Amino acid sequence: MSNDGNYIYSHATGLAAKTVEQHQAPQDLVFYAGWFCPYVQRSWISLEEKGIPYQYKEVNPYKKEQHFLDINPKGLVPAIEYKSKALYESLILCEFFEDAFPEHTPHLLTTDPFDRAYVRLWVDHVSKQIVPTFMRLVMAQEPEKQREHLADFYKGVRTLTDKVKGPYFLGEQFSLVDIALAPWVLRDYILAENRGYSREAAGSAWVAYAKALETRESVLRTQSDKEHYAQIYARYLRNEAQSEAAKAIRAGKPF
Amino acid sequence: MSNDGNYIYSHATGLAAKTVEQHQAPQDLVFYAGWFCPYVQRSWISLEEKGIPYQYKEVNPYKKEQHFLDINPKGLVPAIEYKSKALYESLILCEFFEDAFPEHTPHLLTTDPFDRAYVRLWVDHVSKQIVPTFMRLVMAQEPEKQREHLADFYKGVRTLTDKVKGPYFLGEQFSLVDIALAPWVLRDYILAENRGYSREAAGSAWVAYAKALETRESVLRTQSDKEHYAQIYARYLRNEAQSEAAKAIRAGKPF
Repeated sequence: MSNDGNYIYSHATGLAAKTVEQHQAPQDLVFYAGWFCPYVQRSWISLEEKGIPYQYKEVNPYKKEQHFLDINPKGLVPAIEYKSKALYESLILCEFFEDAFPEHTPHLLTTDPFDRAYVRLWVDHVSKQIVPTFMRLVMAQEPEKQREHLADFYKGVRTLTDKVKGPYFLGEQFSLVDIALAPWVLRDYILAENRGYSREAAGSAWVAYAKALETRESVLRTQSDKEHYAQIYARYLRNEAQSEAAKAIRAGKPF
Repeated sequence: MSNDGNYIYSHATGLAAKTVEQHQAPQDLVFYAGWFCPYVQRSWISLEEKGIPYQYKEVNPYKKEQHFLDINPKGLVPAIEYKSKALYESLILCEFFEDAFPEHTPHLLTTDPFDRAYVRLWVDHVSKQIVPTFMRLVMAQEPEKQREHLADFYKGVRTLTDKVKGPYFLGEQFSLVDIALAPWVLRDYILAENRGYSREAAGSAWVAYAKALETRESVLRTQSDKEHYAQIYARYLRNEAQSEAAKAIRAGKPF
């Protein structure tokens, strides 16, 4: 596949390419994905963790197939088709996998009601405090704004790190909190190379936790080569990206 | 109780006052609330719908008890204490009630995995598209911004209304989509009186759905007198409110 002058590389590379290759056979569950998208990666890690059979379909963001748009009019990835019905939104998909495949372990949301709520609370922290701040920091152009967002990012990360039991958020048990965060940990070299961020500056507990996340097998198996992510982030770093998330950040709206 | 010159009336009134009165006896589940808060009302409606035994405790926003701050350092309502553990966040509490009290019906999230995801998707729409737009519209001072946010509000409402089966979102079954939205339907007279909004302008399906929500028994039982809400919204309408939600809206951040 050529890239036709578009800035997103057309397919997964590295270990993720192997995972894609292993998931080409038709299955009840079709996973519509973009190899580059951190939200996709959340749902993808869940599928890999739980060993749910799925067929991987790369959605070309420049030319979406009609069938995909029919089942998912917003055209966003990640999305799934399962028994002729469509669903989307990364974390809602992760919760769906828990509900629809209870025999597939690990239970990433845990089984105790209080623990489930606790996991949801910290997933919420990742989604509301850490991820949008990451995006604001990448997109900020003025040094003063960059400093402000970097301080916010460290604050969000430290608040979470204070609760990490190690090696994962809940201790030995890998959970949705880890999954919600992992794709941005893998991409934090973008902040390190361009925005003066370092893991060390967030504390040794963060260094250890980030390491545990980025070396988890399911995380590695959904990871492409760094150079192709950098190509995409170049547009965010110049504040020229036109993704739904980028537009929402600019408008100060939730996404 | 006097109000000591503060702008939030000190306790529930109307039908909500009766509900508070009926829930003073100690119970395993303590519900920390503010009668005026739409987020509190979501969790409160869930408790009432499911008939879960709870003890209602009004949190004075001007003078929070030490025990409450000990269990819930952010100091936000709604919050619960259950078997010596604390939880907060309105929708996470609603999901907790489903998980922790499975024998209490109705199942507001439904039981089918696909339907549960579908409910979560539309709760997400309410939380990301409708509620923040309601807030932005109330707080906007310039007529041009008010027009823009009003158009956004109608758009968010119509997108939802297109999916309402009637009388409730899923049909006869009352669900978390209805609960997530109901508190703002009850408060939309603030928009009608101050921002040129009318239910009719959003279409007859919205008129019917709003009516179904505001006349649901659990919604009525958690509702105070309108005049006391108006007192609070007067500050939002002048963009002087200092709640966490108001501050986040001003900063263009999620809440």
